[in-house]
Parts: sequence; C-alpha cells; structure tokens
Amino acid sequence: MHAAPAIISPTFSNEKLRSFIQQAQPATPCLVLDVDRVEHNYLALKAAMPEASIFYAIKSNPAAPVLRRLAKLGSSFDCASVNEIDMALEAGGTPERISFGNTIKKQRDIAAAYARGIRIYAFDSEMELHKLAESAPGSRVFCRILTSGEGADWPLSRKFGCEPDMAYDLLLKAHELGLKPWGVSFHVGSQQKNPKMWDEAVRSSARLFKKLEKKGIELSMINMGGGFPTIYQKPVPTADEYGRAIHGSLTKHFGNAIPKTIIIEPGRGMVGDAGVVLSEVVLVATKSKTDPVRWVYLDIGKYGGLQETMDEAIKYPLETSKDTEAGTRSRVIIAGPTCDSTDVLYEKAEYNLPDALEAGDFITFHSAGAYTTTYAAQSFNGFTPLAEHYI
Amino acid sequence: MHAAPAIISPTFSNEKLRSFIQQAQPATPCLVLDVDRVEHNYLALKAAMPEASIFYAIKSNPAAPVLRRLAKLGSSFDCASVNEIDMALEAGGTPERISFGNTIKKQRDIAAAYARGIRIYAFDSEMELHKLAESAPGSRVFCRILTSGEGADWPLSRKFGCEPDMAYDLLLKAHELGLKPWGVSFHVGSQQKNPKMWDEAVRSSARLFKKLEKKGIELSMINMGGGFPTIYQKPVPTADEYGRAIHGSLTKHFGNAIPKTIIIEPGRGMVGDAGVVLSEVVLVATKSKTDPVRWVYLDIGKYGGLQETMDEAIKYPLETSKDTEAGTRSRVIIAGPTCDSTDVLYEKAEYNLPDALEAGDFITFHSAGAYTTTYAAQSFNGFTPLAEHYI
Repeated sequence: MHAAPAIISPTFSNEKLRSFIQQAQPATPCLVLDVDRVEHNYLALKAAMPEASIFYAIKSNPAAPVLRRLAKLGSSFDCASVNEIDMALEAGGTPERISFGNTIKKQRDIAAAYARGIRIYAFDSEMELHKLAESAPGSRVFCRILTSGEGADWPLSRKFGCEPDMAYDLLLKAHELGLKPWGVSFHVGSQQKNPKMWDEAVRSSARLFKKLEKKGIELSMINMGGGFPTIYQKPVPTADEYGRAIHGSLTKHFGNAIPKTIIIEPGRGMVGDAGVVLSEVVLVATKSKTDPVRWVYLDIGKYGGLQETMDEAIKYPLETSKDTEAGTRSRVIIAGPTCDSTDVLYEKAEYNLPDALEAGDFITFHSAGAYTTTYAAQSFNGFTPLAEHYI
Repeated sequence: MHAAPAIISPTFSNEKLRSFIQQAQPATPCLVLDVDRVEHNYLALKAAMPEASIFYAIKSNPAAPVLRRLAKLGSSFDCASVNEIDMALEAGGTPERISFGNTIKKQRDIAAAYARGIRIYAFDSEMELHKLAESAPGSRVFCRILTSGEGADWPLSRKFGCEPDMAYDLLLKAHELGLKPWGVSFHVGSQQKNPKMWDEAVRSSARLFKKLEKKGIELSMINMGGGFPTIYQKPVPTADEYGRAIHGSLTKHFGNAIPKTIIIEPGRGMVGDAGVVLSEVVLVATKSKTDPVRWVYLDIGKYGGLQETMDEAIKYPLETSKDTEAGTRSRVIIAGPTCDSTDVLYEKAEYNLPDALEAGDFITFHSAGAYTTTYAAQSFNGFTPLAEHYI
C-alpha cells in the first residue's frame, strides 16, 4: 500500500488555486481557473494600452464566471458565433460592446446577430459583404487583412484576411452597399512573442486609411487582434512592452492621426495563465527491454482538451505530485488515454519527469486556461470532457 | 433570388440515404448513417473470415442503433472505456462478448469493468498487469505487440504495444500473477490498404506462441486488430482479399496449429461507408486580385467532427449540390467555420469543385461514418456538435 499521493506538487505556486485543489481534491481531468487572475490580466493590459478597447476573444474560454467578471470590468467581447454572442449578452455584455468577429458567417446567423442589436461585423470577402448588406444593413464593418504570423507559436494560415489591395476595393464596396466602412483588422498569430510583429500590419493599415481617405471614406478604427502571449516554458515580453511597441507603431505610421478607436482582442493573454489542468497518471510503461524511455499515459490527451499540443505547438509547463529535489528525473514521452495512436502529447519535446512517477500520481498542466475546455471532444472513446472549476 | 438548392447532388448514389435526405432536409452539419449498410459490412466480413470473431471497435461510432444492430447479428465488442462497456451492454452485448481493449486503464476502471462481468483485457506493460491482477483476478489477458503501420493512411505511433521479447516476459508474468495468458494482439494501422501487412505480425505472434509453449503456457487467441479500410477516393481490396491474405498468413506461420480463437476488431471497415456528413457552404472567397484559388468555408471543420483531415490524412470523396456535367470546376482550399487558423481541411489535396459554388450550397462528405461524431469538440467557438441521424 502506498500513501495517497498529494494531488499537486509541493512547489505549486498560485496560492488560491493551491488551497482550492488541496481542499476540494477535484476529480481529474479538470480545469481549475482563478477568475481573479483574469481580472489582474485585464487590468494589466488596460494599463499598458489605456487607449485601446479590449474585446475579449470568447473562444479562448467562454465560461460564464470569466465573462461575467470581464463584463463587470467594462470589457467588450469578440464573438465567433451566435452562441458566443448569447453568452456575452447573458454575462452582462451589451450589444454595442460586442463584435461578430468571425469573417465566416451564415446569412441567417448575421440576421440573428442583427436582431440582437449587434452592429459591428468583420469580413474579408465580397460574398460576405453582400450577406452583411442584406442582413445587417447600415452596420459598421471592418476588413481583415492578411499578415504573416512569423514569430507565433500557434500556426497562422492564410485562412483569414485578404491582401490590402483587395481590402481597399472591399471597403469601397461596403460603402456602396450602404454599410459603414469602419476600419481594418489583422492578427499576428496566437502566442506571438515578438512585439515588433504588429508594426508591418499597422503600416499596411495606415496606408489603407490614407488611400481610402482620398476616396472620401474615413476609417476610424484599427483592430489589432489578439496574439498576446501567456507564459508557458519561457518568459514572454510584458503587457507594457507590447503596449509601447504598438503605440510606437501607431505613432510612426499614423502620425498625429491615430485612429479614434483602437481595438485589441486578447484571449490567451487574458485567461491562459489563470488556469491549470489537473490530470492523473494512468500508466507508465517502456516498450522494450533495451529502450529506457518511459511512456507516461495520462487521463487527458489531445482529444480531451489539450488539442494545442498538436505538432507540439504549445508546450505547457508540467509539474507532478512527485516533484521533489531528491528524486531523479529522466526523459519521457507523454500520451493521452484514448486508443488513438495520434493521441500523443509530447514525443519530441524533451520533458523530464521523476523516475518515481507511477499510476495514480498527478500531473498539473500550467497556463492551461485558454483553448482547452471547449476544444475537448464530446465523447471520444467514451471519455467525458474535462470538468471545470472557476474560483 | 435563387431557387433553393438541392441538398444533395444529382449523382448521389445510396438510395436509402438519398430519399431520407431529400425528404427530411436535415439541418447541417449532420451525419446520416444507413444502419443496413453496417449489417451488410458485418455479414461481408463474417463471410470472408468465417473463423474470426468480430469485436466491433465501438470508438469508431458508438451510436446505439449501430450497436444494437451489431449485437443482434452476434457481434462482440472492443471497448476503450467503461462508458463504452456500458454502451455495449445496453445495446444487448453480453459480458463474455466484450473486451476491454485499451492498454491504458485506470485501476478503478478495471474494477468497474470486472464488476460488470468483463473477463477479457488487453495490456502491454508490467504496471498494467499488476493492476489487472489486483482488480480483475483470473481474467483472460492478451498482450499487444508493436508493428510498423506501413501502408496505413492514419498514422500509427509507438504508443501501443511492446516489443515481442518483452511480450514474452509479460505473458509469463501474467501467469505468475494468476491471470490467464490468452494470446497476442497487434494493429497494422487504420485504413490499412495492404492485406500483406498482417503477415509479419502473424509471424511474430506464432513465434511467441511457440516460445511460450516451451514454458508450459498455451496461448489460444490471436487478435488481429482493425485496420480494414473503407473506400474513400481510391478502391481498396475487398473483405475477401483480406480474408484470404490473413488466412494464408495464419496457415503459413501456425501450420496446423492455428489459434482456437481469432479476433478481428473492425471499426472504420464496418461503419465508414455507411455514413455521410452533410455540410453547408458558408462562404466562398479569394485572397487577392491575382490569386484565383478559392477558399470554400463550410459549417463543419476539423473541430466539428472532421478531425481525421488532420495533416490531410483521410481524403473524403466530396459531392456538391452543384455537381452537374455542364459546370466548370477549379481548384479550391476547403476550411471549417471556426476562427482557428488551423481549421483548414484540405489545402494540399487537389480538390476541384464547381465554379458556381456559393453560400447556401451543400457539400456531402462520403464514407464519413467512422471517427466523426464523437471526435467533435463539445463547443469550440460556440458551435454545437453535428447532429446524427441513424436510418
């Protein structure tokens, strides 16, 4: 018989999370998220960029306690779907503080959003403009332009945005169709670690503002998307550093005509470091008598909420209930509990975990508050999605 | 104003699915699955391998109508979790026809399965054997060995199985621990298109049988896993061809001592071609004035159930409601509806779709009955999982 293992490591740092976890001993897998930390992150970003309106990217974590806290703080909301709009409204968001930020919307979803009072819409194509003109007449619209995504951990494809030349045509078209061409948006890639990456996109945006002004179209909004990182393994620049870099770019490219409205859409940067995912070790195994590398199998994997381990893109800091200075550690491969061969979290990333690790021990994934809960498969292999605790 | 588009293509071939879809006009995205086709596939595989016991891999599609039909036909069930065991029992499966086939099991889940009468368990490590000895004493156990997975479309990692040398030690250990060493299992990779790939694993298995016989351990079961393909874009060998190849390997390597029990665990091969996923085109867009490639955005993507498009592994045959001989077609990139840049289904695969395609048209994903529904994210970006219709 072994003594019941501690559910968290002796070195676990967030005191609020620590005392909740130790007292509640929540069943794993689960997310535990400190809502006060979200408030802290909101206020830090607000202080670093006082001129910006924060539109929280609901998709990163749509839990009601998070949305209610942010609504109370005065946050606006960036929504990807009508369901997300409803969540924002239920949490106390008001229609004028909500944007329908997905460039891919069904006609009837635009109509549903319009009926709820939403008057801010993203687009990046002509077909979408026609849908907006029909179902959200007179609304403010902004065009997303393409950027490179270099320097971001989570890959950015060409899925969203159009080339600035096309954006120019489309913003003119928006005006013709009776919509209000409001501004330009872009996204520099999620978990973007280089504050300078905003500069090139701000320059393109400024150029579009000037070209359109010559046609009598006065844009007044720049939406700089999300991308603000959270701390995983390595330090990232502070909110202040992002604020300074972005403010510098705005001044450099817009001179004394900085757009009246500046929007940022943080998701990960707001909730990432507020939450931890707790998991239980189900099995530790080797594959042969000659290969010492241990496979550590957990009760949560790629399909249970840790989808961002895809191609090992996001490397969560891990802590185990056996973390002590005394024990030796060695290389492991970490995998999930399903019968799917692709449900492997880390094989190339060199994680070293205690040699004493065994079934029944616990592993904490730090900075797991963003892009975990809603990603979880509804019942893959019969496993239910992770539980959620907001404290 | 356009006429309401047909929900399916004029060339749609399965008559039962066709008439249901045309009459019910189900809301998209959804799966529609023909349960009679599952019966057809079961009977075809049974006829091709009359000596084999079919353990349906529930994880591929755990819908009750599918399980009930298979239970009625006499199928056994391969389960990945206690929830799946409960589904099999509720559908009419009896405990002796159920195996707990996941090599990664929590101690308490083994106990829960044992309490339900389950006496067949997979393992591939010593730690798992100890758990089984404690919580499922006296049960029949089989050891999974590693294979290469070459020739399979869905990647096979080293996550499951151990080297045969280790399997030898573990099967001896199982006996020492009071378990019944029953046999050997392997998996040649999902959507395995080469019937000869079973041969090497059968050879390894036969060698293990012989070596253990010298120690007084008589194995009597070989579990050849799944891997049986369904037809996506290209023809695959028939069930008969797989049957002949596997039977040939058994005779070649076991001589006249073919194991008393032969198990196969089809999932995809049983339900894949029985179902279609219907989706609606949400948007068609280009990215610049000079690049003619169209992006086609659907109301289902990688996180909505089409996870197997990961790295473009599974290439579903697509049919659109605008498929006519008259229209021209050209190259498209196909993506899902979420705000996630990685939610792109096909960028490298050269899909050509009608130039007339527009928002509101429909696209059918054929052979989408396996590994779609349960994979769907519970609410990513606020989107609800696809609906399911079993007819």
